[in-house]
Amino acid sequence: MTESAITAAILVIGDEILSGRTKDRNIGTIADYCTAIGIDLREVRIVPDEAERIVIAINALRETYTYLFTTGGIGPTHDDITADCVAAAFGVTIDVDPRAKAMLLERHKPEDLNEARLRMARIPAGADLIANPVSKAPGFRIGNVIVMAGVPGIMQAMLDNIGPTLATGAKVLSETIEAGNLPEGTYAGGLAAIAKAHATVSIGSYPSMTPNGFANRVVVRGRDAEAVARARDDVSAMLEGLRGAHA
Amino acid sequence: MTESAITAAILVIGDEILSGRTKDRNIGTIADYCTAIGIDLREVRIVPDEAERIVIAINALRETYTYLFTTGGIGPTHDDITADCVAAAFGVTIDVDPRAKAMLLERHKPEDLNEARLRMARIPAGADLIANPVSKAPGFRIGNVIVMAGVPGIMQAMLDNIGPTLATGAKVLSETIEAGNLPEGTYAGGLAAIAKAHATVSIGSYPSMTPNGFANRVVVRGRDAEAVARARDDVSAMLEGLRGAHA
Repeated sequence: MTESAITAAILVIGDEILSGRTKDRNIGTIADYCTAIGIDLREVRIVPDEAERIVIAINALRETYTYLFTTGGIGPTHDDITADCVAAAFGVTIDVDPRAKAMLLERHKPEDLNEARLRMARIPAGADLIANPVSKAPGFRIGNVIVMAGVPGIMQAMLDNIGPTLATGAKVLSETIEAGNLPEGTYAGGLAAIAKAHATVSIGSYPSMTPNGFANRVVVRGRDAEAVARARDDVSAMLEGLRGAHA
Repeated sequence: MTESAITAAILVIGDEILSGRTKDRNIGTIADYCTAIGIDLREVRIVPDEAERIVIAINALRETYTYLFTTGGIGPTHDDITADCVAAAFGVTIDVDPRAKAMLLERHKPEDLNEARLRMARIPAGADLIANPVSKAPGFRIGNVIVMAGVPGIMQAMLDNIGPTLATGAKVLSETIEAGNLPEGTYAGGLAAIAKAHATVSIGSYPSMTPNGFANRVVVRGRDAEAVARARDDVSAMLEGLRGAHA
């Protein structure tokens, strides 16, 4: 499939994901969002709450892709170190940002804005804030790096805020053709030939298990609607023919 | 927290995860499994179905960690290229493996074992097979790389088969202390002090949102049961004190 000029990666930061205690839901949300607005999500990494690991991953990913989305590690507790790591990755200072502090004061009385809560207003120099309508503590964007909360409801609100400001490419269109219980091994040869003949689209076959056995799907993806439609028609016709032979 | 001698990474292979079409469930399953048997999961990467990307990731991760688990890309269709990439990463040949072919023949008649299905019997030279009780096509292990299916039910069966053969370290014990709606910003200072005083354990604070507002949890993790218990008691006492003051 022709690649979009606009690419992205996700960096999920958090011991709790690697231990299994928390099951990530943000990757799927951001993946759907990128696909919907025409950004190619090209890589995801999950790393622990360790500064060196986070800094290395931020620099590797921000240099490779148009955008890097991070989730997690921007709360008030000692294990929230993402903002400091982003500042270190960019080689900029980090301090309490008056705009971020003002946002926190919408939720907290001045006397409740203790040192821990003020950590959530520490923003790398030169970053733009991303509003958090849920609990006020903002995310931020610096360069091509978009730093968001780990709590899914807050992450989603931040993504909705920053999304419309991002550069996007042509959207990927996709068509799903149900192969049902027709075995992948039966249609794989025909599918490979169709994939070869339609080089501008990407064709994948995705088995899943149901209580009644496999339920297979073929997905055709591409940026050219006519090319996608042509490949879909060829896949449908091929599956139809095999179903007749298989029945 | 003291690190285990036994570490692992996961490499998830598949365009369908990056497009959002399929939501990964294997990462959480493998993470739970590693924690349960005393393996430190230290990194996860998700990459597209592109040979160069897969080979680079396999080599980077297998050289860094005790084990690398991969999921996805071992089916019969043209987009399943994981086995070839593993062979390329190790610099070994790959061909139809008689043991794997015999497994496929438990499910398919010889005349149905077409070229596509035989792809599932192509195994890098020197690999050991991992039985697949669900649909017979095996996973495999070569060196420290464990190659499994992407379909969660099959991945899980393969993990159950290979798991007992892996080297493991001391298990991580964890204690969860409910902070309820006590705000993170209220206990963050006390928690940081406790974390500093209990350096052999790892202490994290995990907010989640419920219809009634935040529900916060503190988790103490470590390999020494007494150290975990001491830290847990300190966290409980600290939260209790704040709850009194906060009420």
